[in-house]
Amino acid sequence: MLKRIVLGVQYDGSPWRGWQTQPEGNTVQDVLEHGLLQFTGSKIRTTCAGRTDAGVHGIEQVVHFDTELTRNMYSWINGVNTFLPDSVAIQWAKELPLDPDSEDNFHARFSARARTYHYILHNSKIRSPMWLQRAGWQFRPLDVDRMREGAAYLLGEQDFSAFRASGCQAKSPVKHMYSIKITRQGEMIVFTLRASAFLHHMVRNIVGSLIFVGTGKREPRWMGEVLESRNREIAAPTFSPDGLYLARIDYEDKWQLPQKELLDTPAFLSFL
Amino acid sequence: MLKRIVLGVQYDGSPWRGWQTQPEGNTVQDVLEHGLLQFTGSKIRTTCAGRTDAGVHGIEQVVHFDTELTRNMYSWINGVNTFLPDSVAIQWAKELPLDPDSEDNFHARFSARARTYHYILHNSKIRSPMWLQRAGWQFRPLDVDRMREGAAYLLGEQDFSAFRASGCQAKSPVKHMYSIKITRQGEMIVFTLRASAFLHHMVRNIVGSLIFVGTGKREPRWMGEVLESRNREIAAPTFSPDGLYLARIDYEDKWQLPQKELLDTPAFLSFL
Repeated sequence: MLKRIVLGVQYDGSPWRGWQTQPEGNTVQDVLEHGLLQFTGSKIRTTCAGRTDAGVHGIEQVVHFDTELTRNMYSWINGVNTFLPDSVAIQWAKELPLDPDSEDNFHARFSARARTYHYILHNSKIRSPMWLQRAGWQFRPLDVDRMREGAAYLLGEQDFSAFRASGCQAKSPVKHMYSIKITRQGEMIVFTLRASAFLHHMVRNIVGSLIFVGTGKREPRWMGEVLESRNREIAAPTFSPDGLYLARIDYEDKWQLPQKELLDTPAFLSFL
Repeated sequence: MLKRIVLGVQYDGSPWRGWQTQPEGNTVQDVLEHGLLQFTGSKIRTTCAGRTDAGVHGIEQVVHFDTELTRNMYSWINGVNTFLPDSVAIQWAKELPLDPDSEDNFHARFSARARTYHYILHNSKIRSPMWLQRAGWQFRPLDVDRMREGAAYLLGEQDFSAFRASGCQAKSPVKHMYSIKITRQGEMIVFTLRASAFLHHMVRNIVGSLIFVGTGKREPRWMGEVLESRNREIAAPTFSPDGLYLARIDYEDKWQLPQKELLDTPAFLSFL
């Protein structure tokens, strides 16, 4: 009997060419599907909740695939992890029923109700090797209050065309931004964005623009002007992928996924 | 006039074959001296406070070298950093007088009064790519109280031969262990060891042995037995370098080095 297996997958994105499979390989999807092939002996195609770009990390990416194989959840986790590189690891697994005649099957992407990303920024005059490929870096001092004021213009249901990469394949540029939290802990600043969905490069374009506001190069209300323009030429350049983490995908409780709790206020390696 | 320049150097040790220069290159000292050569045009030899092994990180390594060049401290930091790879960066610089006829010149190694290392351990059934090359990993549950009880046997002036690598070049195996703090925050455990000096592999051998105590494989008093044996065959195998950080070198206040504060209780990336 066909079942749908859902996985929570964590990865360090720095060595990979993004999530989505490519002819040249070296993507997270490629290595995950290769691990599933080695574990099951069958070719398995996976579907993820949110494709991440090259260098972007996944704290908890959600993936599903269909199989007739019967394995316990421990095997799906530890058995497959044996065949994955150190930078990718399944954190949890859940088996859900699959009814080919129903429209109410779980789907990693279409069942998702919201996505949360963290952007971790090291704000210091001198770059820190401790945060290499784990955080973006900005040497100019940033005013968190100004950035919060600017971020407020992006809340609610909005057309985010101004923060959308030219190659973005989303059907609509209209997304609902539920919250943008900006917290500072010492030299580290964390941006936590939660929205119905995100366009391609949307978080990195928003963070880049908020940094313009934080350094004083732009006024907070400029964020609203950029948004209203719907013109990608006006916003700041796409910021580095190093500090971007897909942190959480929200689903309805009925699926009972064993997801990890998303902490509101990340605490950092503050001894650096 | 010859001056002694002191640098605080931070590095991600994972891509490097340790601190000390080697004929094959690819060490932190090699890239630092190459950066100094590019910045100054002169061949400069550096002396560090504590040589770290391949894969071991430096939050604040202290280094000195002698030069007749006159540069301001900003230039020693930012000028040289321009010629260093992303995984190595000078954090501060200080110029000290050098009197060739005096025995009281500052020396990165001989003037050091104590060294502090952190060992960061991820204690979880499932490995986390977020901590790849930044923390050791132990999947068996660890009892922190038992490890603290075991660590207490190592305090004070002791012969640490049982925790010393066979190739260690230290003149004496007797060192003074000032403190061993073990703290847990969620799935992360931090060991912070402060001693007059450390033998080769000493922290990793102690951490490996404490893990034997933490899992219940050995009793806490076994740490005392290992120490007294002075026999390297008895202690646990050398633990992974991934979680080891040279955190702090203590010097007398009279040198007025602009060192970063060492925080007692590291807070972690607890949103993982």
